[in-house]
Amino acid sequence: MSLIVVGSMAFDAIETPFGKSDKIVGGAATYIAWSASNFTRPVYQISVVGGDFPKEEMKMLEARGVSMEGVQVKENEKSFFWSGRYQMDMNVRETLETQLNVLGHFRPVVPESYQDCEFLMLGNLAPSVQWSVINQLKERPRLVVLDTMNFWMESAMPDLERVLKKIDVLLVNDSEARQLSGQFSLVTAAREIMDMGPKYLIIKKGEHGALLFYEDQVFFAPALPLEVVFDPTGAGDTFAGGFIGHLARVKDISFESMKTAIIVGSAMASFCVEKFGVTRLKELTREEIDMRIRGFKDLTSFDIELV
Amino acid sequence: MSLIVVGSMAFDAIETPFGKSDKIVGGAATYIAWSASNFTRPVYQISVVGGDFPKEEMKMLEARGVSMEGVQVKENEKSFFWSGRYQMDMNVRETLETQLNVLGHFRPVVPESYQDCEFLMLGNLAPSVQWSVINQLKERPRLVVLDTMNFWMESAMPDLERVLKKIDVLLVNDSEARQLSGQFSLVTAAREIMDMGPKYLIIKKGEHGALLFYEDQVFFAPALPLEVVFDPTGAGDTFAGGFIGHLARVKDISFESMKTAIIVGSAMASFCVEKFGVTRLKELTREEIDMRIRGFKDLTSFDIELV
Repeated sequence: MSLIVVGSMAFDAIETPFGKSDKIVGGAATYIAWSASNFTRPVYQISVVGGDFPKEEMKMLEARGVSMEGVQVKENEKSFFWSGRYQMDMNVRETLETQLNVLGHFRPVVPESYQDCEFLMLGNLAPSVQWSVINQLKERPRLVVLDTMNFWMESAMPDLERVLKKIDVLLVNDSEARQLSGQFSLVTAAREIMDMGPKYLIIKKGEHGALLFYEDQVFFAPALPLEVVFDPTGAGDTFAGGFIGHLARVKDISFESMKTAIIVGSAMASFCVEKFGVTRLKELTREEIDMRIRGFKDLTSFDIELV
Repeated sequence: MSLIVVGSMAFDAIETPFGKSDKIVGGAATYIAWSASNFTRPVYQISVVGGDFPKEEMKMLEARGVSMEGVQVKENEKSFFWSGRYQMDMNVRETLETQLNVLGHFRPVVPESYQDCEFLMLGNLAPSVQWSVINQLKERPRLVVLDTMNFWMESAMPDLERVLKKIDVLLVNDSEARQLSGQFSLVTAAREIMDMGPKYLIIKKGEHGALLFYEDQVFFAPALPLEVVFDPTGAGDTFAGGFIGHLARVKDISFESMKTAIIVGSAMASFCVEKFGVTRLKELTREEIDMRIRGFKDLTSFDIELV
């Protein structure tokens, strides 16, 4: 069941308490594709890069079953660049520099060959770009998942509100859920956000796990307690890739199925943070992934025996 | 299987964003006894109060099977008093006033009738007081659980280090675990703390749940996502009471059993925060408790079906 992934393919420069990276390959769609392609292929990628984006990175993704037909290459321009710094509390990050470059005027085009897609992952991007992709699809996908961030709530709220009405699952972190709803309690926030459009809401809480809300039900997925979070960049995108990749694989979009998908996403994110950038994702084996998913089961399972 | 509970019985005055309490009955041992007595009786209470402590509160506890023989009443003195304020982020609290009163010179005496106890819950108190109770017991209990806080790490670290060598399970919150170990990563912190004495470590993370560490295993218990946390005072003590109360009931102190005990503790804590003080704990039914424990199962259970 094919999956379209929309998002940035870009460069990042990252500082953490454990080290500093050079300008390395990143971007939401890069992480999502590396993560999702463990579970479903082909992945139909939609993005834009400059002439500076390494061709071999695109070839490596193609070799994984990620189609580059929808990735525009602007040879005479530069790719999106972000640099940021994390403190010991990796849940908070500081942006040092943002260069929009090719992303500043990105007009996504959905290739004809992508039209049969059943799953659509709208990675973090301008809501107007996310909206454009939805509208280019002749048939609505079975499941539309959208990731966004506080930046768009501040700069493009009307666009965001419009696209929220068109999606099934929204991914945000806890502070973004509070900002979007104006509510402090995550339970109240979730209810108000679901009234804005999405049927399902996933609130990511970094090292504290994630919550999935649907109607009046809630599911709590832990994060694996890790000795070292080396670099949290891309963890949310890797989570999203594992989440939608699993759903596309099992072709079941029920609440029960989404619970497992969140565990798969959490397992993938726990790998991502072990090394800079997508390094760890590139070397992953299916056995490692399965073992870690089982680790999540052990982490939370208990027996109840009531009197 | 009898349980000794040691801790303060006191007055609190609490301000939250949702309201302000009068001077109400509180104290670690009060919360622990109300919580634990749902699961095991008798509860052998050890504490000290002034003449101002309401006799009817003690009678209500006695009616629940909580023995007051070890509670010293200093008729001409005043009970311990604490007042504090919470902001919207209930994980952080500000102390407005502390009056030690009777607690300043508390010398616990373990009554002869308490000597057969198998479970010992050392609520948050001066480590020298906790130490004194351990040493008055002729036979070491099967399980000794200790709760403490940053205040004792700052003012009585040698006493705390001494008592940590004598216990089985330590309860602290995440910032206290970091302070005690000098480590930021909770996994590394846990290993260092277990080297200080306790075989098991529970790290409470408030609305983010709790972690149980034992050797190289870890268990993650969620907190119930709540619409309103009305007053978090006593939540940690109520958790401790549910935890040790469950263990005393099932008489099984294995790692597996402790996982369930943590869920029971979390369920009890989720009731505690719904109203000021022990109000909600007093009106609880066994059916409500069972239903909430089942709710925790639903909150985290998922099916894995790997390829």
